[in-house]
Order: sequence, then structure tokens, then C-alpha cells
Amino acid sequence: MTQPSEKALVPFVSVDNMMRLIHHVGVEQILCDLAGYVEDDFKRWELFDKTPRVASHSDVGVIELMPTSDGEAYGFKYVNGHPKNTSEGLQTVTAFGLLADVYTGYPVLLTEMTILTALRTAATSAMVAKYLAPKGADTMAMIGNGAQSEFQSLAMKAICGITSVRLYDNDPAATAKCAANLASTGLNVVICTSPEQAIEGAQILTTCTADKQCATILSDNMVGAGVHINAIGGDCPGKTELAAGILSRSDVFVEFPPQTRVEGEIQQMPEDFPVTELWQVITGAKTGRTSAEQITLFDSVGFAIEDFSALRYIRDQIKGSDFFFELDMLADPDDPRDLFGMVQRAAQ
Amino acid sequence: MTQPSEKALVPFVSVDNMMRLIHHVGVEQILCDLAGYVEDDFKRWELFDKTPRVASHSDVGVIELMPTSDGEAYGFKYVNGHPKNTSEGLQTVTAFGLLADVYTGYPVLLTEMTILTALRTAATSAMVAKYLAPKGADTMAMIGNGAQSEFQSLAMKAICGITSVRLYDNDPAATAKCAANLASTGLNVVICTSPEQAIEGAQILTTCTADKQCATILSDNMVGAGVHINAIGGDCPGKTELAAGILSRSDVFVEFPPQTRVEGEIQQMPEDFPVTELWQVITGAKTGRTSAEQITLFDSVGFAIEDFSALRYIRDQIKGSDFFFELDMLADPDDPRDLFGMVQRAAQ
Repeated sequence: MTQPSEKALVPFVSVDNMMRLIHHVGVEQILCDLAGYVEDDFKRWELFDKTPRVASHSDVGVIELMPTSDGEAYGFKYVNGHPKNTSEGLQTVTAFGLLADVYTGYPVLLTEMTILTALRTAATSAMVAKYLAPKGADTMAMIGNGAQSEFQSLAMKAICGITSVRLYDNDPAATAKCAANLASTGLNVVICTSPEQAIEGAQILTTCTADKQCATILSDNMVGAGVHINAIGGDCPGKTELAAGILSRSDVFVEFPPQTRVEGEIQQMPEDFPVTELWQVITGAKTGRTSAEQITLFDSVGFAIEDFSALRYIRDQIKGSDFFFELDMLADPDDPRDLFGMVQRAAQ
Repeated sequence: MTQPSEKALVPFVSVDNMMRLIHHVGVEQILCDLAGYVEDDFKRWELFDKTPRVASHSDVGVIELMPTSDGEAYGFKYVNGHPKNTSEGLQTVTAFGLLADVYTGYPVLLTEMTILTALRTAATSAMVAKYLAPKGADTMAMIGNGAQSEFQSLAMKAICGITSVRLYDNDPAATAKCAANLASTGLNVVICTSPEQAIEGAQILTTCTADKQCATILSDNMVGAGVHINAIGGDCPGKTELAAGILSRSDVFVEFPPQTRVEGEIQQMPEDFPVTELWQVITGAKTGRTSAEQITLFDSVGFAIEDFSALRYIRDQIKGSDFFFELDMLADPDDPRDLFGMVQRAAQ
């Protein structure tokens, strides 16, 4: 075996090591840390190289690449979305990501991102709710109790201080699973049998259902004044969760308008439907919540910069740790022009 | 440690295993095999999902993602291009690639592609030369003796039957390296001290130099009738190797016109400069070489489908072999909705 050079080795965080890291840091702490990294990158939003994700659609799902760069680091995520997978015992969404050095083009981190995406999505929702939810919000309705639900609940607890979650899913087994997983987290968990029951007394309404169809999880008459809606599940063309009437009555906040207008809840609305870019709220250039009666709505679709933040966090966290191992992924001959010679010598 | 499920494991071909595979198959055989896979995919060109590569440019280089899909498999390559890297002891180009199952969205192969890209580029050049080079071509001028030069030489030997290569580089050390690497391959190797000397008696002229600038490696008066030019090095905006006059006298063949018009030699020409798509030559829909006097020119920039072919080949080759190991890259809980529970149980 030829000994690879140091530059040829890329730190890799496996699923097992990601879970070890989460337990080492603590799941609520890691959600807070990630929210901080995402918030920092929203503050310097303008310097990022932004492009809508590159999607490859098929009849049953989509495979996407989500690249971005801050000029020093380059990151991308591979992610699929296959709603039918759940019924076949597979994840709807799996992901991995990579961070590279813009100056050399060499990758510096490869990591699982199925779990990390769940964490960053929840951290982003809670960071946004910190700006938009009504003061003193202590109760969240969690509608859709799939893979994202526990992460959302814990992020809202750790970052926004909610104390109660009210769970609803059209499959009671999903709600039971979510309730069991949250049992020892300190959250007051209420199992609900209808969306109407779930939103009773909740100041934050989180929707995260998975069907690829124009669904109406929340109808117009269900949503009263003063709430913050955290709409996670509408994230691709043809997939929405909210009645258009809710959007008309809300102030809608988005990550990256060109992407959200295609993928988010606002795909139901005219092209010039007014939205506020979140990064401007976070820098203070625009106002977030302006009154107690206002309905705020985060039309979340997930943007590459949030993955970039998560990749930066993992890169920083694993330094000097044993939460990774090195992959011999890059051919790096002593003489860079002598790639063939390196291959030839490997035979000896 | 939690035992990952089988679906969570992605076969990974390291640099070391790629080199072992090459020696197991034989470098000339693997070039022939890859040429066959590329040729097969050119024959079914129309069914591929084609998009120009997604590039992130900086002052010193570019990082690109090159995705494509045939409807059953999805592949992409990460590749950087940093001409200044060589002077810093790094590779100009490093790459890795991934193949996934379109039906589930789950990755099925992760592999180094620095070496594999060198192989597929050479295999594609030789496969194309088989269609376009003059009958009985036995001599190639190899101008630019960097990392690609030996692979080009051996592919032209294995696939087109050339017996002599005439080497030139503006750095004699590169030529000496290339000549030494080719010494025991059975090729007749001639070291030349000028491009003019290199092309004497050659029917195939391969240019593969790396400077990111409008260079003129071949000037108009150097190129006589009847040759095939295999132009590899002009592959990004601002980077060309041939005088425009040569293009005007040649029949130019390209991979994917929207990409080649931006990145290839023909970026020097008007937007409506006539080109022939190679896949049409290979299916027989268009003619390739029509006379002994004609100058044919392959304006090679490298296209995602060639990487897809190479990924397919590696996937097929490693089945049942020990040329890979499995990476715990995908979180795949028993209950797909219970990602959080999987994380929670990993602490126990």
C-alpha cells in the first residue's frame, strides 16, 4: 500500500460519530450552537455566493445539490427527497455534505448530514422564531410528528424557551413515537387528536408534514391573531401545507426569495407577493414582529447557507477530537504532474 | 456503537483501492473498458438529464459540481480546477464522485475521481479519435506533458493503435517525467524541443496545457491537412490553446454545445460557429471524418455523462471484490420516522 500524503486525507464524520458528537455536546446545546452559526451566516448573507439548488427530478422524488461559498470556504450538500420512501422502510430525506478550501479547491470535511440537516433545520426554525414569535410564547403546536418533530420541539425549548408541545399527526403511531421520545426532555407533551386541538393555546404553530401534494394542514379559519407559523413541510413544487388565505393575512418571511417562490408555501401566491428576507430582519435592516396581533410566518424551505453553517460548526467541533477518521479520497502525488507515476509505483 | 443498517452503508473506493483496481485490471484494459462505457452512454445521449456544470469561481480557481442522470442512476462529480496549485505542490485538479439510485435517492457508490477522471478523459479522447482520426494513424504529438499526458498516450495506443508519441512541454522536466513513465509501455517515445518538432509526422495532435490564459500552443500555420486535433486543455472561460484560424479550417466536434461554447476552444468563435455533436457521430446520425484532407478537431471540455460512465464502470467492477470498503454515511433508522429515537438510543 502506498502511504497517502496528508493533503490526500479528508476528515470524515460517520453517522456513528455524528451521534457520538451530539451526545458529547448535548442535543439542546448543539441546537443552540448551530442556531448561533446560522445566525452569524445570516448576518453576512450578502457576501455568499447564492444559487437555487440544482435539482434532478424523477416520478418518485428529487435529488438535489445545494452549493454555496463565502469566498474562503465552499460547501455543498447532497440531499434526496422521496416521500414514498417511508412506506418502504427508508428515510424520506438522506444527506451528506462537504466543505472545501476555496483557495486550493481541496475538500477539508466530508460528513453525514441526514442527522445534521434535521438539527440545522430545527435550529434555524428556532433562531427565526426568536425574532418573530410573540413575546412570552411558551406553547408550540407540532403538526406532523415525523423525523423532524422532536428536533423542532427541542430547538424551540432550548432557543425560545417553550415549555409545552401539542402533538398531532394523522397517524397516531407517529404521535406516540414523538411523545415517547420527548418524555424525558422536560417538555410538557400533550397528545392531540386533531389539528384544531393541537393549536389551542399555542403561540407557535409548526407544520411539518411530508405529502407531495397541495394539502391544507391549516385552514384559514383555524389561525387566529398573534401567532407565529413555522411552516417546514412545504418545500418543493406542488407541496404546500397552508391555505392561501393564511398567507394573505400573514407577514411572510423567507430565506432566499427566488427559491422560496418556487418551493415554498408562497408558490400558491402571485409572483409579486410581498415577502421579507430573514437576513434583513437579523441584521436589523427590516423589522420582524411589529405587533401582538400580527401573524408572522416563516416559509421555510431550507437554504444552502444553513448547511454551510452546519458544516462550519462540525469542522470547528471535530478539531483535535476523535469524532472523525480520515479518508484517502484525494490523489496527491509528490510531484503534482506525476499522477501516472504515482499509480505506476503503487504496483510495486 | 450502534450497528448501522445495510442501507446506511455506502461502498467507498479510496485512492489506494482505485490504484489496486487499475493494476488488477491493467491500465490499458481499464482505458479500453472505460471507452466502451463512455461510448455506450454517448449512444443513449438523448435520455440523459443534461445541465451545464455548476461552477463556483474565485480569483485562483473554480469548484464545480457535474450532475447527470439516466433516469435509473444519478451521478455527480465534485472537481476543482486551480492552475496555481501545481506551483504549490498540489494537484491542479482533484475530484471525487458519487452514484445514487434515482428510485430511492440513496447513494450507492462514493469514489475518488482524481485518477478516474484522468482515465475517463483519456478514454474519451481515444474513443473519439477512433471515429475521427485519419485511417492508419500511428503517431501522436503530445503537447503538454503534465498529469494527463501518459493517460492520453496509453489510451491512444490501446484504443487507436498508435505506436509513437512525440512529447513536448515548455518545461523539459515534465517531458522527462512523461518519457520515463512511458519507457516500458511499448510506445516509441520521442522527446521534442519545440511544438513544431513534436507535430512532425503526427496524425493526431493532442494539446493539454494548463495555463488559464488565451494561449496559442498551436498556431495556424503549424497545422497541415488531414490531422485530428484532440484539444484537451481549453476547458474554462479565458483558457484556450489553439489559434482561431485553426478552428476556422477544422470540422469541430463537441460534447455538449451549451457548455463547450462557454468553456472550450470555440469560445473564441461567434455564437453560431458550426459544430457537430459527438453523440450523433457515434450513433451514425452525422458523419465524422469525410476525407483524408479534412482537419477534425475534438474540442474537449469534459462532460458529466463521461463521469457517469466512469462511475457505472467502477460500480460494476467492484461488485464482489475487495476494492472498496463501506462507509457509515447514511442515517437509516429501523422506523424511518424515528431519526431522533435512533440518535437517542445511540447514547445508551
